[in-house]
Amino acid sequence: MPLNAQILLDNRPVGEAVASNFKLVSNETPALQDGQVLVRHHFLSLDPYMRGRMNDSKSYTAAQPLHEVMGGGTVGDIIESRHPKFAVGDQVVGMGGWQQYSVVSANEPGALRKVDTTHIPLGAYLGAVGMPGVTAWYGLVNIIAPKAGETMVVSAATGAVGSAFAALSRARGCRTVGIAGGPDKCKYAVDELGFDACIDYKLHKDAASLSKALKAACPNGIDGYFENVGGMVLDAVLSRMNAFGRIAVCGMIAGYNGAPLPLANPALILISRLKVQGFIVSEHMEVWPEALKELGTLVATGKLRPRESVAIGLAGAPEAFLGLLKGKNFGKQLVKLI
Amino acid sequence: MPLNAQILLDNRPVGEAVASNFKLVSNETPALQDGQVLVRHHFLSLDPYMRGRMNDSKSYTAAQPLHEVMGGGTVGDIIESRHPKFAVGDQVVGMGGWQQYSVVSANEPGALRKVDTTHIPLGAYLGAVGMPGVTAWYGLVNIIAPKAGETMVVSAATGAVGSAFAALSRARGCRTVGIAGGPDKCKYAVDELGFDACIDYKLHKDAASLSKALKAACPNGIDGYFENVGGMVLDAVLSRMNAFGRIAVCGMIAGYNGAPLPLANPALILISRLKVQGFIVSEHMEVWPEALKELGTLVATGKLRPRESVAIGLAGAPEAFLGLLKGKNFGKQLVKLI
Repeated sequence: MPLNAQILLDNRPVGEAVASNFKLVSNETPALQDGQVLVRHHFLSLDPYMRGRMNDSKSYTAAQPLHEVMGGGTVGDIIESRHPKFAVGDQVVGMGGWQQYSVVSANEPGALRKVDTTHIPLGAYLGAVGMPGVTAWYGLVNIIAPKAGETMVVSAATGAVGSAFAALSRARGCRTVGIAGGPDKCKYAVDELGFDACIDYKLHKDAASLSKALKAACPNGIDGYFENVGGMVLDAVLSRMNAFGRIAVCGMIAGYNGAPLPLANPALILISRLKVQGFIVSEHMEVWPEALKELGTLVATGKLRPRESVAIGLAGAPEAFLGLLKGKNFGKQLVKLI
Repeated sequence: MPLNAQILLDNRPVGEAVASNFKLVSNETPALQDGQVLVRHHFLSLDPYMRGRMNDSKSYTAAQPLHEVMGGGTVGDIIESRHPKFAVGDQVVGMGGWQQYSVVSANEPGALRKVDTTHIPLGAYLGAVGMPGVTAWYGLVNIIAPKAGETMVVSAATGAVGSAFAALSRARGCRTVGIAGGPDKCKYAVDELGFDACIDYKLHKDAASLSKALKAACPNGIDGYFENVGGMVLDAVLSRMNAFGRIAVCGMIAGYNGAPLPLANPALILISRLKVQGFIVSEHMEVWPEALKELGTLVATGKLRPRESVAIGLAGAPEAFLGLLKGKNFGKQLVKLI
């Protein structure tokens, strides 16, 4: 069995997450038992939700246990199998974690899914045609429920979720406006991802200034908002929501590293009769087949061509992850392992 | 025609509303035209939403025009009629405003509705069997959608909306917990309104303290919350919401008089996967018949016996209204005019 490099959570962050929260180790992979397969990971997915799991406090996912391999989505190929439905060479997506190899009991529901890379690159199953894509789909379709001609806004617009959101929103005939950090991301959002406009939040020192920019980009107001960041961006968007607007709350990355960020004027929820709903996509597995079908078609036909930031080698995962929390990534953040 | 005392909005509040924002005048009532009736008001309703209308800023209702009679719900009897469907002596509910008499074009949809006082007192049509009752009904039934055995919480528990909410929630088999200001209101909530428990928010200096009291009163957490006040109370309740909880936002009276009150930790909407929805009951007229039927039955059978605070005489309306904004009323605030 191969030697397996792994990254453990060594200690929990106090305030901002730092590289020393993680620890790189090597272990022998155990021998397979009946029903198990050995997966060699090609890509590891890095996602904002992992920051919440590093804390020991109440969150929507169980805390990441200390001194265990960091959890996370992976794609790879099977290099040894003791399961009749998986053969050596099969390409699979699963939750292998921050390590080079994983031993998977393939009978557990949802543990491992075979994927086809004829028209869709393997890494996309961690992004547009994976959890982030379905996240965008659920928030847009099941919470926001857009009508053609409405205006949709998404923050972290060039990320894995934001880019999928744009393609799904455009397919439904909506004006689609992004919010992202920096001129490169905003240009990319409009030129490559099909956003009708994209606002650089870094140009705005407060919510009032950002709100003015939103007014210009959304002359008919905002009907649906997909929230990834919170803080000043949420304050600004709230001020531009139309009556009966819907907000899908997927993430609040701006507050992940420290004290909670307040919402300045919650009375707007009443004044504009808004629906604000939080969700986590893994609790809605029933929508995954329909969502993955639409997302797969968008990618296979070139209508959704999300950008990736790829860090090389497992040892680079902590730095890439910490960068993700600060918006240093540009598109879906992956770690390439072979 | 009788001389008609009226209260106008003379000028808009700067910060806190004050008595000098209002002006008492007297005018002749105009002669009736075809299709009109003259209503003598028995009771005027005072409601928190009126504070929002005194501002000129964006709100869910149109601003109250300056130098015009303050709008508001009224019940009374018809003393002159030029409409074939209304006779002298009919008892009616309408939006007559802060004045002794109103001339109503009775053909306008929703302008005037005849009511039966055989089993329901006239004033109740401004409270439990009127707009406040339907408000409680809509938030509970259409937004919170409670299941038997769940825990429901309402703020301003002894007010017109809160007391109706309690009866409706109990009828659905829910543990029902109130939040109110002062020991008298809390005792009344439990002894007379049927709340399982009621918390005196005035005993708590911050949200953390109130949150502990909520934990004790709601050992299984909170599944549904009906929000009338905002501020510290909302912060505390949010911290005790169960996963997939629902919050109906009906009012945020704590912030009506000054700067917006922030929400301390909006990330809880995500962490607990909450739905937070604002509404205004006049936009959902389709539910009124069903809601009024249930509310009327609850009142007629003695299962909902809401308390009233009654100010005497039109000239007392401003003081009673300003007291309402500070929680000085105890139950539905009415002004008795004859």
